[in-house]
Parts: sequence; C-alpha cells; structure tokens
Amino acid sequence: MTNPNHPFLAACRREKTPYTPVWLMRQAGRYMKEYRKLRAEFSFLDLCKRPDLAAEITVTPVERLGVDAAILFADILLLLEPMGVPLEYTKDDGPVISHPVRTGADVDRLKELDPDRSLPFVFEAVRKSRAALNGKVPLIGFAGAPFTLASYLIEGGGSRSYIHTKRLMYSDPGAWRNLMERLSRAVVQYLNAQITAGAQAVQIFDSWVGCMSPEDYQKYVSPHMSATISGLTDGIPVIHFSTGTAGLLRLIRAAGGDIIGVDWRVNLDEAWQQLGYDVGIQGNLDPAALLAPLDEIRGKVGEILRRAGGRPGHIFNLGHGVLPDTPVEHVIAMVQAVHELSAR
Amino acid sequence: MTNPNHPFLAACRREKTPYTPVWLMRQAGRYMKEYRKLRAEFSFLDLCKRPDLAAEITVTPVERLGVDAAILFADILLLLEPMGVPLEYTKDDGPVISHPVRTGADVDRLKELDPDRSLPFVFEAVRKSRAALNGKVPLIGFAGAPFTLASYLIEGGGSRSYIHTKRLMYSDPGAWRNLMERLSRAVVQYLNAQITAGAQAVQIFDSWVGCMSPEDYQKYVSPHMSATISGLTDGIPVIHFSTGTAGLLRLIRAAGGDIIGVDWRVNLDEAWQQLGYDVGIQGNLDPAALLAPLDEIRGKVGEILRRAGGRPGHIFNLGHGVLPDTPVEHVIAMVQAVHELSAR
Repeated sequence: MTNPNHPFLAACRREKTPYTPVWLMRQAGRYMKEYRKLRAEFSFLDLCKRPDLAAEITVTPVERLGVDAAILFADILLLLEPMGVPLEYTKDDGPVISHPVRTGADVDRLKELDPDRSLPFVFEAVRKSRAALNGKVPLIGFAGAPFTLASYLIEGGGSRSYIHTKRLMYSDPGAWRNLMERLSRAVVQYLNAQITAGAQAVQIFDSWVGCMSPEDYQKYVSPHMSATISGLTDGIPVIHFSTGTAGLLRLIRAAGGDIIGVDWRVNLDEAWQQLGYDVGIQGNLDPAALLAPLDEIRGKVGEILRRAGGRPGHIFNLGHGVLPDTPVEHVIAMVQAVHELSAR
Repeated sequence: MTNPNHPFLAACRREKTPYTPVWLMRQAGRYMKEYRKLRAEFSFLDLCKRPDLAAEITVTPVERLGVDAAILFADILLLLEPMGVPLEYTKDDGPVISHPVRTGADVDRLKELDPDRSLPFVFEAVRKSRAALNGKVPLIGFAGAPFTLASYLIEGGGSRSYIHTKRLMYSDPGAWRNLMERLSRAVVQYLNAQITAGAQAVQIFDSWVGCMSPEDYQKYVSPHMSATISGLTDGIPVIHFSTGTAGLLRLIRAAGGDIIGVDWRVNLDEAWQQLGYDVGIQGNLDPAALLAPLDEIRGKVGEILRRAGGRPGHIFNLGHGVLPDTPVEHVIAMVQAVHELSAR
C-alpha cells in the first residue's frame, strides 16, 4: 500500500509536501544502461508485451534515480494495434504506420477497443510494478491523448507540419469528429483499466497538440479532451501534458486535468498564473539542460523552484522526455537538487 | 520609386492604411508551378546565384497573388559558404552541412564575411528585383538570425531537439559567444549591403529560437539579437520573426524590431497585448489552413483581422512559409479576403 500522503499524491491534490516531488518523462529509457542491455536482447514491442520485463524497467529508475513516482513502461500507441492499425517501431523506437488513416472510410474501419481482451499484458505490468514498488512510490499510468493519437494515425508516424491531420480536420469535420470520439472512448477504457489494475495517477500525453492554433484547438480538440478526462475513474489524479503550448494554456486548463504539464518554453510562474492557482502544474526543465555541467543544472533547478514559489501543487519534471544522450549522473544530481533546494 | 506611403511601408511605421497589407513567407516556392518549372532545370543554389532568375522568382508572386510586398528569393544559409562552411541542399531544398561546427576551434576557423566580394549575386538580384517591380510594391530583404544560423551550423541541418547547439552553449559559453558575435557581424554586413542595393525593409528569421527557455533566450540569444538589429541602417523597417515563441514574446520584443512576426500558435490579440502596442505585429495564419476549403480560409482570415482590431501596424502573413502542397488558388483567395475584409 502506498501512503496516500506520499508527496507525489499530496502534490496532485495541491497539498503541502515536505519537498517538491519529482519524476521524469522517459525516466526508463535509452539513456540508462540497464535499459539498453534489455533492448539489445528484446525489441521495443517485446519489452512492452512482457509484463515481467516492463515491470522491471518501470521500477529500476526509482531505485537508481531516487524519483518520487514510477511511470509504467509502455507506449502511447499500443492501443492502435487492437483497433486494427498495425504498427512497427524503427530501431530508434520511432513508430511507423504503413497504412495511415486518411479518409472517413478509414476511420469507419477502426475497431472498438476492448482493452482487457487485447492488452492484458499492460494491466499485468501494472500489477507487477505495484507489487515490485511495494508501496515505496506511487505508480503513474498513461495514454496518448486523442489528438496526438490521431496525428500518428493520420501522418503514419512523427511529423513536422501535420499537414494530413489538418487537411482531414478541415475538409471532413465529420470524419474527424468520428475519429476523435473513437479515440477518446478507447483512451477512457484503456486508462480506467490501468486504474483498476493499480495505477494511482494517470498522465495523458497530448505531446503534439502544440501545432494547433487556439481557435482550432477549441473547435477540433478541446471537446474530445474534456470527454476523455471526464470519463476517467473519480478520485485518481489526472496530469494533462502537452508541449509547445504556451499560447494554448488557458484552453488546455479548461479542457481538464488536476495537474497541467508545461514545457520549458514558457516561464513556470507565468504559465501557472495563466492556468490559475486552482490547478497544479508539472514541469518544466528543458531536457537538453541535463547535458549541461552540474552547477548549471543546479542553477536551473533552483530557478524553476523559485518561480514555483513553494506553492503547493508543483510537481517537478522535465518539459518532455529524457534525451537518449543524457548522462545518468546528471539526472541523479537533478533529482537531488530538486529535493535539497525545495526542502521545507 | 516606390511610394513611401505604400500600405506595407506605412504599416511598418504603424500608420493607418486603407487596408491591411499582406505578403507570405515563401510566396515564391515549390507550391507554384512557375517555380517548379525553373527548379526542374536549375538547382536551388543555382537559382539563388543567378540574379536574373532570382529576380524573376521574386517578382512572379506579386503579379500572380496580388500581395503587397515582394521578398527577395534567396536562402538564409547563403552567407555560410563564404564564411568557410560548405553546404549542400537535398532535392527538397533542405540544407546539409557535412562538417558542422562543434567546438571552439571550429568557431575560430570561421571567416569574416565580406558580402560585397563573396555574395555579389544577392545584391544584383536585389537591384534587378527593384527594377522589375518598378515601384509597384516594396522589396523585403532578409537574413537568418544569429541563433538560427548557429543551430544550422552546429546541428549540420534541421533538428528536433537542438542537442548539439545547447550542449555547446552550456558547456563552452565562450565559444558560443564568439560564434554568435561572428554571426551577428556577418548578418549586419549582409543586411546593410542588401539595403544599400535597394531592400526597403528587412526580415530577420529566427525560425528555430522557439526551442529555447526564456532564461536561456535572455542569456544566450537576446544580446546578440539586439546587437544585430541595432547595427542595421537607420530608417529601414526591421521585421523580427520567429516561430513557437508564445512564451518568449516579451523578450523577443525587447531584443528589437519594428514589427514582431508571430506564428499561429498564439492568438494575435493576446500576442500584441504582450508585445505592447508601440510595436507592429505580423501574422498569423497557420500555413496548413491554406489546405482548407475556401470558406474556412475566409473565416480564419476574418478571425485574425478581428483580433487585430483594425489597429495600425498589423501586416497580414502566415505564421511560417507556404507549404509545398498549397493550391495557388487558395493563396490568391486568402490575399483577396485580407484586402476585402480589412478595407476601411
């Protein structure tokens, strides 16, 4: 049993904590030799589908880094395969969808997700991770947000301009709505099943929604994000994460979430002021700052904590995932700096 | 002679104009069949180095689209070759630098730019464009900003995370400052030579600076951007352009420029309020919006004009360059919509 007053869970409720809790997106990843060793033997998808290994990868950084939460090792695109969209990963773990969704007919062919039937290994990994964590720190579950999932489905992988996504949105708003509603239902099912299996908080990654104008966000994204968040099991904190959204913060906050994740391209104090203090905030160190010398990292940690002002409801994190070239010792030093400099 | 009260020039001085002037970044480009025809015969660099062809490409969109300014056909990286950094362009016109700048010694090897000697074709293209425009609309010259040039030099091309750039910045601040000072001097020389040749306004493209945190922008970019802008010939309007900088706008404005270019990921009225009304604003339609049906485009143009509120000093533009897939008729319809809906 995790203590419900664990600093991470308390911060999610915007309660005072003895120090600012910290975890990192992709804290289990290629920058860590334990992970690279497993990846040399198993493919990325194999690791996701082997609950014993996924749990091991989930738990390792908690021991190694001293972070205040574990995040399930999985991938935001796992739910696409059972929806009828096969995908592959390149050797850099980048996703490729060889038959992208481009038309209303493509959308209609998508299957409804039955997560318990098609993704049992994810929930087994949740249970095994909880058992291995043994109450030490809470476990965060996660999923991609409908927009970010849609953009992968439509573009067939990563993108710079999201041309196909926006073209579908503008030229066939009915197909777009249909797609977003299907994805929203799938995400709700999937996250609620993670919660049932033992996830104590969830993060929804709308990683690529920063490509949208505020007007388009409001029209094409916000209703589906609201529906997703309000479909989740009550009482479990929801972190609503995105990047490149300094101009969208008010709309993102309005779409929902207990904690809003912001990236480094906005000052944390200005972001929180825009979001309002009735919501928590997560962030916001530049992942590239972990390539800097240790004293520079410590300085940047201090600056972010200063901007957070000791206000309850701040969870320290990077503004996006740990970069593959990051030295592990720099991550450890960053976590220590957060704990030391925020100690109250 | 261009009328000094031409709407574009008047808007640069924040004077009232009979309608909102409009031009588009990459208004001469692959989306236009006239350009593709030339590209089938000549390489991208050949076109840049042939003043007759560069001038033809510069002038064509003015006739074809009805825009209120021409922008010189050239590339922001042209000045790198005479600084001692050879570069190539892929067939999609993407730049590749096979020997990127990664160390202080690499920075020291860069040559000072003598633009009149090494880039005479650019200034000849300016003169030929002015002659061909024959006073119809003003001609905008341009250059890359020191940060954006540095990021290409260091990464060796485009980038997603700017890891090498940030690593150099953090780990060797002396080399970084040296690089930025050299680039700033080169940009000043280069733009002033364009102005001498006849450019009536200049735009500085800091296209990739949106990857920076506000703190890092202030420390590593802002002083060099200020030095660049204050080194330019007096009396010529300067457009300071960037993308993805909704969280940096106050700092960008403080670095200088008569007009601040903003992208679509922030509402124009909110951006202008942050910048202050003692500076003009350029933007901010999503280039992908030009893939939408015509009525949707017209609606979006109207929304941006509504947010500009008829305030003098707004220049309509996209938030970044025209996308290659854009139908020319959509661009023409957009320009017409700006003129019609803003007519006062």
